[in-house]
Amino acid sequence: MIRVDGRNYNELRKVKVTRNYLKHPQGSVLIQMGDTKVICTAMIEDKVPPFLKGSGLGWITAEYSMLPGSTGSRKIRESSRGKVEGRSQEIQRLIGRALRSIVNLEDVGERTIWIDCDVIQADGGTRTASITGSFIALADAFYKLYEEGILSYIPLKGFLSAVSVGVVDEKPMLDLCYIEDSNAKVDMNVVMTSDGEFVELQGTGEKSPFSFKDLNELIALGQKGNEELISLQKEALGDISNLIGMNKPERGEADDE
Amino acid sequence: MIRVDGRNYNELRKVKVTRNYLKHPQGSVLIQMGDTKVICTAMIEDKVPPFLKGSGLGWITAEYSMLPGSTGSRKIRESSRGKVEGRSQEIQRLIGRALRSIVNLEDVGERTIWIDCDVIQADGGTRTASITGSFIALADAFYKLYEEGILSYIPLKGFLSAVSVGVVDEKPMLDLCYIEDSNAKVDMNVVMTSDGEFVELQGTGEKSPFSFKDLNELIALGQKGNEELISLQKEALGDISNLIGMNKPERGEADDE
Amino acid sequence: MIRVDGRNYNELRKVKVTRNYLKHPQGSVLIQMGDTKVICTAMIEDKVPPFLKGSGLGWITAEYSMLPGSTGSRKIRESSRGKVEGRSQEIQRLIGRALRSIVNLEDVGERTIWIDCDVIQADGGTRTASITGSFIALADAFYKLYEEGILSYIPLKGFLSAVSVGVVDEKPMLDLCYIEDSNAKVDMNVVMTSDGEFVELQGTGEKSPFSFKDLNELIALGQKGNEELISLQKEALGDISNLIGMNKPERGEADDE
Amino acid sequence: MIRVDGRNYNELRKVKVTRNYLKHPQGSVLIQMGDTKVICTAMIEDKVPPFLKGSGLGWITAEYSMLPGSTGSRKIRESSRGKVEGRSQEIQRLIGRALRSIVNLEDVGERTIWIDCDVIQADGGTRTASITGSFIALADAFYKLYEEGILSYIPLKGFLSAVSVGVVDEKPMLDLCYIEDSNAKVDMNVVMTSDGEFVELQGTGEKSPFSFKDLNELIALGQKGNEELISLQKEALGDISNLIGMNKPERGEADDE
Amino acid sequence: MIRVDGRNYNELRKVKVTRNYLKHPQGSVLIQMGDTKVICTAMIEDKVPPFLKGSGLGWITAEYSMLPGSTGSRKIRESSRGKVEGRSQEIQRLIGRALRSIVNLEDVGERTIWIDCDVIQADGGTRTASITGSFIALADAFYKLYEEGILSYIPLKGFLSAVSVGVVDEKPMLDLCYIEDSNAKVDMNVVMTSDGEFVELQGTGEKSPFSFKDLNELIALGQKGNEELISLQKEALGDISNLIGMNKPERGEADDE
Amino acid sequence: MIRVDGRNYNELRKVKVTRNYLKHPQGSVLIQMGDTKVICTAMIEDKVPPFLKGSGLGWITAEYSMLPGSTGSRKIRESSRGKVEGRSQEIQRLIGRALRSIVNLEDVGERTIWIDCDVIQADGGTRTASITGSFIALADAFYKLYEEGILSYIPLKGFLSAVSVGVVDEKPMLDLCYIEDSNAKVDMNVVMTSDGEFVELQGTGEKSPFSFKDLNELIALGQKGNEELISLQKEALGDISNLIGMNKPERGEADDE
Repeated sequence: MIRVDGRNYNELRKVKVTRNYLKHPQGSVLIQMGDTKVICTAMIEDKVPPFLKGSGLGWITAEYSMLPGSTGSRKIRESSRGKVEGRSQEIQRLIGRALRSIVNLEDVGERTIWIDCDVIQADGGTRTASITGSFIALADAFYKLYEEGILSYIPLKGFLSAVSVGVVDEKPMLDLCYIEDSNAKVDMNVVMTSDGEFVELQGTGEKSPFSFKDLNELIALGQKGNEELISLQKEALGDISNLIGMNKPERGEADDE
Repeated sequence: MIRVDGRNYNELRKVKVTRNYLKHPQGSVLIQMGDTKVICTAMIEDKVPPFLKGSGLGWITAEYSMLPGSTGSRKIRESSRGKVEGRSQEIQRLIGRALRSIVNLEDVGERTIWIDCDVIQADGGTRTASITGSFIALADAFYKLYEEGILSYIPLKGFLSAVSVGVVDEKPMLDLCYIEDSNAKVDMNVVMTSDGEFVELQGTGEKSPFSFKDLNELIALGQKGNEELISLQKEALGDISNLIGMNKPERGEADDE
Repeated sequence: MIRVDGRNYNELRKVKVTRNYLKHPQGSVLIQMGDTKVICTAMIEDKVPPFLKGSGLGWITAEYSMLPGSTGSRKIRESSRGKVEGRSQEIQRLIGRALRSIVNLEDVGERTIWIDCDVIQADGGTRTASITGSFIALADAFYKLYEEGILSYIPLKGFLSAVSVGVVDEKPMLDLCYIEDSNAKVDMNVVMTSDGEFVELQGTGEKSPFSFKDLNELIALGQKGNEELISLQKEALGDISNLIGMNKPERGEADDE
Repeated sequence: MIRVDGRNYNELRKVKVTRNYLKHPQGSVLIQMGDTKVICTAMIEDKVPPFLKGSGLGWITAEYSMLPGSTGSRKIRESSRGKVEGRSQEIQRLIGRALRSIVNLEDVGERTIWIDCDVIQADGGTRTASITGSFIALADAFYKLYEEGILSYIPLKGFLSAVSVGVVDEKPMLDLCYIEDSNAKVDMNVVMTSDGEFVELQGTGEKSPFSFKDLNELIALGQKGNEELISLQKEALGDISNLIGMNKPERGEADDE
Repeated sequence: MIRVDGRNYNELRKVKVTRNYLKHPQGSVLIQMGDTKVICTAMIEDKVPPFLKGSGLGWITAEYSMLPGSTGSRKIRESSRGKVEGRSQEIQRLIGRALRSIVNLEDVGERTIWIDCDVIQADGGTRTASITGSFIALADAFYKLYEEGILSYIPLKGFLSAVSVGVVDEKPMLDLCYIEDSNAKVDMNVVMTSDGEFVELQGTGEKSPFSFKDLNELIALGQKGNEELISLQKEALGDISNLIGMNKPERGEADDE
Repeated sequence: MIRVDGRNYNELRKVKVTRNYLKHPQGSVLIQMGDTKVICTAMIEDKVPPFLKGSGLGWITAEYSMLPGSTGSRKIRESSRGKVEGRSQEIQRLIGRALRSIVNLEDVGERTIWIDCDVIQADGGTRTASITGSFIALADAFYKLYEEGILSYIPLKGFLSAVSVGVVDEKPMLDLCYIEDSNAKVDMNVVMTSDGEFVELQGTGEKSPFSFKDLNELIALGQKGNEELISLQKEALGDISNLIGMNKPERGEADDE
């Protein structure tokens, strides 16, 4: 079976990562997965939300939005509606939760890292591309704090990426584009770490429920996709990759001499 | 291992369903799962949202809210904040999606069924209790339309229930109460049909990622819990249960003579 | 003349009070007056609004809302509208004002008691039932503070209840149900203390003005209704009733010995 | 006893009515009661709210607001807050209800009369001054429709005015100014018709409950004040006064000849 | 050519300034330019916005609104819409910016002067009338602080006024009334100081672009209009005029003796 | 004098225009002026706002927003604030007005062209870059309608561009970058057509008023800058440029044969 864009059922779209896409944020990435394009930025603020004040913990929070011109029929701005719609809230909660799971928040200090994902062109899989791209922006932001000596190491437990999978025309497929996504009877987002573990798994069978067998096939595709994405993240981050997943250096090592 | 409330790891809390709890809605249920209490209502409106006008399809939409007194520290009203918060939006989107998956919308006619889930007391698992209870309210509402001759059958493909599962103190557990939920490293909501298939699967490892083995154990617990909940739904619905999952009667059967 | 529900013109509907209806709030009551059902809760917060900071005074504030399924045609949520509508604001201002009038705020300490009235089923008289029920929840909350030794007495000057009266088909009537209320030419809410004094009197003759004679008849009915309601409150509160209306104990009484 | 401004206990403040204060609205009045100054306008719109469409009835609706500079410490604009506060909503609902009670809505045709009351200077009694002034603006607006032949008579059943009364320093008083109002233990607004009947009666004893005797004394003062205000309305309206309170002319009277 | 209201092309409408129009604000002015009437108030608050805390600077901020009855068809309240519309925001930002330009903010102390411009009748030029009138209210408010010894001088660098100019029927004109304004192909607002310099210049050719020659003619008219308005301001302010534009008195002058 | 970035006082920053930047909108442009980068899109909707229904006229409306990562310290989303802030409203009103001035709206048909300007990186002059870029996106959108035969010509009267000028360190300068802009005592935006006429002129001297001589120097710089920008627009649009500024073809020319 050949897909609408000629891919094999277990093949990712072409992924392109542009680091340092913008000059102001500490981390900024333009991630493209096929025709889906998202600007992901990470900006550091030296304070935490009220519920963390005095806790010594850092915080990661995310916001997600689509530009009006990103979709086929113009997307009305949420600022004009006066509120963030349910879908965006759901997505930004997912992005924040996923990224927090991979961070040693107790080593970030009382800082908030603001992650912003702005979709400039949408062709399916914007939420998973946002997670994959934001991870890189976050690593860059932490690296900057590390370089400046503010952090003693990069407080990331490992790598984190996300991909969509689904059942289209009775066939499980990896990384759905928009046309596939709108015809999928089952749609699942799989967020994984470089240790091969799951951080989020969200499967929906609105058009039709799915069996345990479907589930297992989809998860296998998700694993394959995330492995490849994490390889691409490593490549994009270059030397910084080696600093990810390390333990916090113990104090005093040098002092002993 | 014994749980905080003395249950076995694979045991549901005590479930109690009160049908026809309120006099105005076509379907209304008070569902209690342990100390979690939710009023679920189903009300019929003879029109559909703009995007369905003229389509011949019906629609199911859900809203979810917590009463200020439902939680330990008072829950600020969303009407006072002036907006529905992200968590509620996420939950009500889930409830609506799950219920729509089990309904033959093309046989509902251009009607909207409004599902309202109001948590009057919260002790974990409010979103899954909302789904399980709303299904019964929805069945009652459809039965009323059927009895009045407006629908020729009850357009439900089968039963639908939901339960939470999670990993607490390294042990998979079924139907988490609040204390368990706040200590869970993994938390998953499993929505299933009476055919044993999945409608939604949402697993989150915010505190710690989870393995494929964890996933399989949690899913097995979810299956067990949902089987029991569907038995309870059948019992609560009595004779109406037999009318659920039937095919649409073909027209003309009588006409042939 | 016999009323739609068979009552005499000066007869209350059947009243049922369930104390400690919910487990989290310090005071919680389900009050039923006929088919009108309201959950009233009282929750204590250890701070006051900005305008009272440093004053030594406590504060009582109230919020009122109707569940979507509480009325014949579904009540749209105020959180979806994005604002609290005028009617609700008017009612919650009335509830708060009425309750504050019976409390020695200077003896509450810098605390806010949040009163929440959530109508789960509406059949006329929801605002007056809210006041009558909230008084009991408030007494329970104060009793808890007294038991814990935080307050030296229950700072309630007396009992407080409310009832609606109106002129229907040219006849004054007590405690209107919804059908009567919608046909009333005059509608009045009477809030009274156990001393037989008035706290609020709100009479409206939108359909037709009313005479001084009408007024006097309505007030007499309101007095009768409130006397009965206060008896019911006493019964519901049991022994706590004896602690209401006492003076603040003078310090040093015991110390002198 | 002499009051802060030298008045007798049963004396109104000096009232001044300027008709046709603005050029655009069909009716516009600047009413001054002592230092309280309110601009009241009546504007006609040739449609009714959705719930009256096709009913043949007209509608009267009111909005009330205070200018930022109308009070001692600057009043924050409700547009800046993003919502109309509870007090304003309560007042504008009162104004609308009171005016509707005196109008034969079935003879207005499917029109809405928008009443706007904007307080430019506040010194107590703004809501009652708004009612008294708006009545005149409304009469002027109806007169314009009558003059243009759109209405066959002025559909006002009679005159309508409002005044505040209260108990200050244990003494009942008429038409409280701001200082008196803030010291009043009881505060009551009395809206009456030229037939001496009540349209609204709102008494509040937030600081202290009031007795039946208090009530009767306050009502007597309210009657006196309203009689005087209605005299002033008649004087202000001149010849138009004679057209108020008439019956709808029967059709065909002339046609018969 | 004679204009709709008989004026010459370079002639202002009749201007009338009523100082101390309201009793509460420190400065309050009713300014009338022809049929345009605006209440301008200046109220002092002893704190500054967060971004100026600790800076030693004062702040001037402005709000602008139109009464519902100020225009031909009723102007919907921004509080009812729930937001300040774009046009009002643009105007109030202009008023604030213009007034700040003429004030020595470093000599105001950490105070905010709130300027409120409420249009009670609109006939073109409301934003420029607001600036001209507010300047007087501001001067009065500063004078009060000076009189009370809180300020050592009036911290105004000079006078400030504003006027509209435009091209109507191919002719440049000064101070457009509403009919002229709605037919103007070019519309310009000119804000100037008593030194003959420009503070704001906003020209718009929505219906048709304008040439450099048009621009120069319009500016010349704006200069003439503002000169006359500043003369009127001086006349209105009387003796206070002489205190405007002075330097801050050096400390110690008296101390030296 | 050499500027912070080495430019001459009358020199534009490097301008780069990328047409067809996004795949969904009918026109889309990434415009870069130095480090300022704005995505401008034009999307066609086949209906007009209510006030134009039935008029036969088309409409152009614009929205403007800044991405959170576009500025040095993170820009809070307007959707999170729940409203569009004053500055954005002012800018989007300007963009819409400017573009409408150059369009023959009567030849657009009852269509709305939505212009969206999203700043992805800000370094001064975002509103003028938005206008210059949007003009190109608009031309592309019209060209598409023309190519499809929906429009008989491109209904643009000519070209339109915008540039900022200002007085920095007492020197007039063209096209201010952010550092210059924040130090400018006078700041002016000049919007011009290819006929050398003005569409908008907005000069502000918040820090210091400006003289007639300043004004003339600034305008001359604005003219030079806009001439260069219009050349760049022509180059970017290639052959389409020749279709701009033409008259509507008369019907029947071909029919006559």
